Parts: sequence; C-alpha cells; structure tokens
Amino acid sequence: MAVQSHVDAPDLACDVFHADPARVAEVRAAQPDAVTVERLAEIFNALGDPTRVRLLSALATAELCVCDLATLLSLTESAISHQLRFLRSLRLVRARRAGRMVFYRLDDEHIVRLLAQGREHAEEGVSRFGR
Amino acid sequence: MAVQSHVDAPDLACDVFHADPARVAEVRAAQPDAVTVERLAEIFNALGDPTRVRLLSALATAELCVCDLATLLSLTESAISHQLRFLRSLRLVRARRAGRMVFYRLDDEHIVRLLAQGREHAEEGVSRFGR
Repeated sequence: MAVQSHVDAPDLACDVFHADPARVAEVRAAQPDAVTVERLAEIFNALGDPTRVRLLSALATAELCVCDLATLLSLTESAISHQLRFLRSLRLVRARRAGRMVFYRLDDEHIVRLLAQGREHAEEGVSRFGR
Repeated sequence: MAVQSHVDAPDLACDVFHADPARVAEVRAAQPDAVTVERLAEIFNALGDPTRVRLLSALATAELCVCDLATLLSLTESAISHQLRFLRSLRLVRARRAGRMVFYRLDDEHIVRLLAQGREHAEEGVSRFGR
C-alpha cells in the first residue's frame, strides 16, 4: 500500500467507482443536521477575516474594552465596535459592563479552544513550509 | 457591576476612552504574527462553506474515498475532487492510495478538534435559541 503525502500528491481519485454502502450509512448517521451545518459555516466564515482573527486572538489572551482593541489593532473605535457587534450577533464574543467601561471576551470555551487549535495548525504550517 | 447578556445587549462601548497601556502591551506580546493571522483567516474562510463543512464533518467520522463522499453528499465525483484538491492545498485533508482506491481523512488532530469545537458551539446555539 503506497502512502502518498498530501503536499506533493497529484489530483487523486479512485481508479474505479466503488462507494461502500455500509460505510456511507454509518457516516451519514453521525452527520450534523442542516441547521447546524449552516450555523457552523456561518461561524467559520465570520472567522475567515484577518481583522477578526486579530481581534479574537486578542480576546483569547485577555478581556479587553473597545479602547484597548482600537489601540492594539490601530483601528478606530467605530471599526472595532462594528466588528464586535457582528461577532456578538454570532455569539462569538460577549460583553460585560463595569462602571463606565465595557469589556469583551470570547463567548465560551469552545471558541477559545477552536481558535487555539486553528492557531496551532497555522503555526505548524508556517514552520513546516516557511510561508 | 451590571452583567449584560450578549444576546440582548445594545451596542456597547465604554463611556470614556481609556486604553490600558500595560494590558495592551501584554496582549500584543501574545499575538500571532502576520503570516499566521493570514493563514488562520485562510483556513477559517475555507471552512466557511456548507458543502465543505459537510465534507469535513464526514471525514471527521471516517476515512472515505471520493465515491463515498459523492454518494453521501449527493454531488458529482468531479465536484468532490475539486473541493478535496482545494482542502488539500490548505492542508486540511490528506490522501492515501490503497490499491485502486484513494482514501481521504482530516490532515491532523488540530483539524479534528477544531471541527468538534465548532460543532459543539453550533449545536449548543441551535438548542439554546432554536434556530
């Protein structure tokens, strides 16, 4: 059995069409429903933007206010608020008022871990392929 | 201190501009570099599509060939191959030839866990808000 690397593999497909009905049925039973698939795509799509990656990576480190984020990312408060409103609508971040300040953090542990896994994979890629 | 929910919170920002320099410096030191940010956004962007979510969710369950995936997702082999080529270029899936068949699986444990975290968050949202 030849194991081919994903890096230099040519366009790979089976030489013959042979779907395994039992395997397909087993996998089908374990799939997320249509609403979950749509929501998952929506979440990942929201994360697929460098500014939002930077913003969420910052919030993965500490609870921050709009002023902190504007300073850190060199963006206007208005631009930061706009992004936070969008991320809040998807339940990726949540806000907490403390006196005259409002602090933001990642919505829950899933988002923290999701970002951490993505970052590890991306950093591994950078060190493996130097890009 | 009033704690506001992220669900019904109005557009929230601080009443005064007050960035904390020490906090900003600390967070800045922990941020991913520009190349990693771009790569991370690229990965999430690739995941932000319902067909690719279904394809990767299937591969999170079992190693599958193009024929299995075409059957499972009711798509042509050509459409599946196109998506797999794209996902392979981003190191999200990898291929293994076994005789006349070629099997695909998720590239590594980061991708497995990333999808699992996203799915848990999405399913929690569905059950919490009924959407």
